[in-house]
Amino acid sequence: MHSHKQKNRQHYKQLFVIIFGVLLWFTPVPEGLSLPAWHLFAIFISIILAVIIEATSIFTASIIGLGFVILTHTLTAKQAYSGFSQGFILLIIVAFLIARGVIKSGLGKRIALLIIKKFGKSSLGLGYSIIAADMFISPAFPSNTARSGVLYPIVQALSADSGSKVNDGTRKKLGAYLMMTSMAGLTISSAMWLTAMAANPAGAKMAKEFGIEISYGSWALASFAPSLVAFIVIPWLLFKIFPPELKETPDAPLIAQEQLEHMGNVHKNEYIMGFTFIAMITFWVFSAQLHIDKTAIAFLGLGVLMLANIFTLDDLAHEGRALGTLIWFGTLYAMSSYLNEFGFMSWLGMHISNIIAGQSWPVVYVGLVLAYVFIHYFFVSQTAQMLALFSVFLSVGINADVPAEMLALMLLFATNFNAMITPQGSSANVIYLSSGYIESREVYKYGGIVTLANTLIYLGVGTAWIMLIF
Amino acid sequence: MHSHKQKNRQHYKQLFVIIFGVLLWFTPVPEGLSLPAWHLFAIFISIILAVIIEATSIFTASIIGLGFVILTHTLTAKQAYSGFSQGFILLIIVAFLIARGVIKSGLGKRIALLIIKKFGKSSLGLGYSIIAADMFISPAFPSNTARSGVLYPIVQALSADSGSKVNDGTRKKLGAYLMMTSMAGLTISSAMWLTAMAANPAGAKMAKEFGIEISYGSWALASFAPSLVAFIVIPWLLFKIFPPELKETPDAPLIAQEQLEHMGNVHKNEYIMGFTFIAMITFWVFSAQLHIDKTAIAFLGLGVLMLANIFTLDDLAHEGRALGTLIWFGTLYAMSSYLNEFGFMSWLGMHISNIIAGQSWPVVYVGLVLAYVFIHYFFVSQTAQMLALFSVFLSVGINADVPAEMLALMLLFATNFNAMITPQGSSANVIYLSSGYIESREVYKYGGIVTLANTLIYLGVGTAWIMLIF
Repeated sequence: MHSHKQKNRQHYKQLFVIIFGVLLWFTPVPEGLSLPAWHLFAIFISIILAVIIEATSIFTASIIGLGFVILTHTLTAKQAYSGFSQGFILLIIVAFLIARGVIKSGLGKRIALLIIKKFGKSSLGLGYSIIAADMFISPAFPSNTARSGVLYPIVQALSADSGSKVNDGTRKKLGAYLMMTSMAGLTISSAMWLTAMAANPAGAKMAKEFGIEISYGSWALASFAPSLVAFIVIPWLLFKIFPPELKETPDAPLIAQEQLEHMGNVHKNEYIMGFTFIAMITFWVFSAQLHIDKTAIAFLGLGVLMLANIFTLDDLAHEGRALGTLIWFGTLYAMSSYLNEFGFMSWLGMHISNIIAGQSWPVVYVGLVLAYVFIHYFFVSQTAQMLALFSVFLSVGINADVPAEMLALMLLFATNFNAMITPQGSSANVIYLSSGYIESREVYKYGGIVTLANTLIYLGVGTAWIMLIF
Repeated sequence: MHSHKQKNRQHYKQLFVIIFGVLLWFTPVPEGLSLPAWHLFAIFISIILAVIIEATSIFTASIIGLGFVILTHTLTAKQAYSGFSQGFILLIIVAFLIARGVIKSGLGKRIALLIIKKFGKSSLGLGYSIIAADMFISPAFPSNTARSGVLYPIVQALSADSGSKVNDGTRKKLGAYLMMTSMAGLTISSAMWLTAMAANPAGAKMAKEFGIEISYGSWALASFAPSLVAFIVIPWLLFKIFPPELKETPDAPLIAQEQLEHMGNVHKNEYIMGFTFIAMITFWVFSAQLHIDKTAIAFLGLGVLMLANIFTLDDLAHEGRALGTLIWFGTLYAMSSYLNEFGFMSWLGMHISNIIAGQSWPVVYVGLVLAYVFIHYFFVSQTAQMLALFSVFLSVGINADVPAEMLALMLLFATNFNAMITPQGSSANVIYLSSGYIESREVYKYGGIVTLANTLIYLGVGTAWIMLIF
């Protein structure tokens, strides 16, 4: 229940967003932009503002924005709803449901207890172990979306089995920290390997058009130092700024050991779940080579869980959050796609490039990377940003005598390490948000800080390292 | 919990569906069909079989079918997921969420009590009053999807306030009957007026190409007698074959009166809900003239309810059923659309027409109408069936000297009165199914009987009536 005062404050914030949006809508269109592009931007940025200042939830802001965007004919209904049938968005939704199966089967608990037994003496230790696992599997996992679907159920079980849940108000005890850390970990693990994110190889190919050769090895070598530093710094940083209430848990490994003994042998449902999960992961890893759709694999996997009664219709009935996620994420994705298609993104990129160009190359280099990171505020897809801006930024930099390979690598790293700047900045974020352990606004704040830290580490350590070794 | 024996039976059924599907898949493709069309048919019909024999739920059957259809490259992922961004499907999902707001605000209860006060002496009386209300608003409501969104919350409140709920196992006390009756009512109300369903005017336009003039008046006149008979027969028929446990409730009006007094004046949330709902309905009614998207209106309406805290994120979290509905209905819709696009539907229509043609005109007339009704088993959209088959069937009939206007009218009526033959036969069915009061298999059975009764009434009474008056 909201108090009267809180309610009033909420209404003032909502009024502020509306005034902001209306003023922006009627502001004369900047030169070089079309009217629909400007109007779409006005609605899109108003939604983001509403979320940041907590005027409404991301769901409410998105559906209202969706209504306006269609009724004002800024987008056609078909364009505005196009996000809901995007495979990678559906993958997140289905992965979220499968995660429930992992938990319900008992397998999630068992894996969580095994991790706690080994690394569970402190929350920080758990944080590190999650990211380490992520980094370990990431080179074979060319989809950070699918990888988040694998990590998420483990993180959720770790939280729940440490007594940190969403419904009873204990999310901040441990779960919020672990979820945020795993989200941050995905930005690092994706930047670490050429094959750890779907867009990375595409980016390497685009760089080749500028005569820049980026191999599996050169990528790994260049990213090694900054990724290692980020791996060390980020869990600790989040531990300081977004601390779990549960910090030291010296008895946890022993308790976990006892609980494991109490669980006894692996049950039938755990076997079915484990087998299904491993099969799904295997197909996901080889999906590109086998030309199979990752989302279809996930749908089949969920089907198996339903046939086995591990995930039931009753379970589904309580997963309304997944529907909410599909709607808000699909909406923002469609808006961002059309902002790009209407030329807003390239217009913005050009303007920023023009401002930066003409300076000395180190200034251009840093300016381009910072701008590239910052612009991700407007993008819902990492791949879309890369396709829209990577070549533009790279050519501006090369013209200003920035070392080409270094800039190309740094922009490709940035494509990954900027992913946490907004809740919608990566599909991998979304599954963690759906959990309810993390609120949208917390991502803007702490994800923003992580993005800043990532930027400092990759720009600082990474640049020095690349100049040293290349 | 399933008993061991039940579980085994379930597995036999599932095995049966798989064998059926595999055999069909490898059956030589009938002449005139492409391989993808045949394969898609094999998967689609296997899903329907699984639901009819209760091998799995409609959700499970659909997602497994979806997985196969993509992994076998029968459809591309993009084609297979295209249903999820269809506006009319999203409209059902959002209307379902808004219905929760109607209930939660207290407005649903108040309207339900007013209806019970007036018509609540028997369950049959309530059934008639729901359909009467539907028929009354339908001429101004050119979307049966939107109309179901208006009727559904009332029917739900009527059920709940009569002590019939889903979660406590009392769905058959009254709710199942009322939901089934309202679903059946929509098939009649849609057939009653030229303007009561989106496809009706389009059908009239298609008839014009054959020189057949169908006006608002001639449609209403022709449908008057059969629709009236159906209105009288159907609620009574369902009362006999699908009876509510609660039949006579002589005290209900008095109790409702007392509860209304207890509720006191209309509360603030009821005003907000009522205002939002009336605004939505108004925009829905004039959506064609104003060129506004009905689904966008619904999204905005839901947004208002969320701003007013009438529908909250916590409420959303418990609406996972809506996600399930979106997935199974979107999947079946996409498959049916591509069955049509791949030429399966016109191939089937041609074959049936060929068999029928050459007979005397009354035989051709009855045969065509029956075939048209029966073919709806394969269609998920009433409009799609009409666009695919109406002209084909009409021209076959005219060539066999069937009175053209009568056949045209009867096929257009059939486009509406066949809608209950499957759970996915109309988007209007879907919202009732989402409620949990009705199971998919019950629709196949009782919806099938209603369709049969409708067919007998419209073909019998309707034909006699049309021959009398025209």
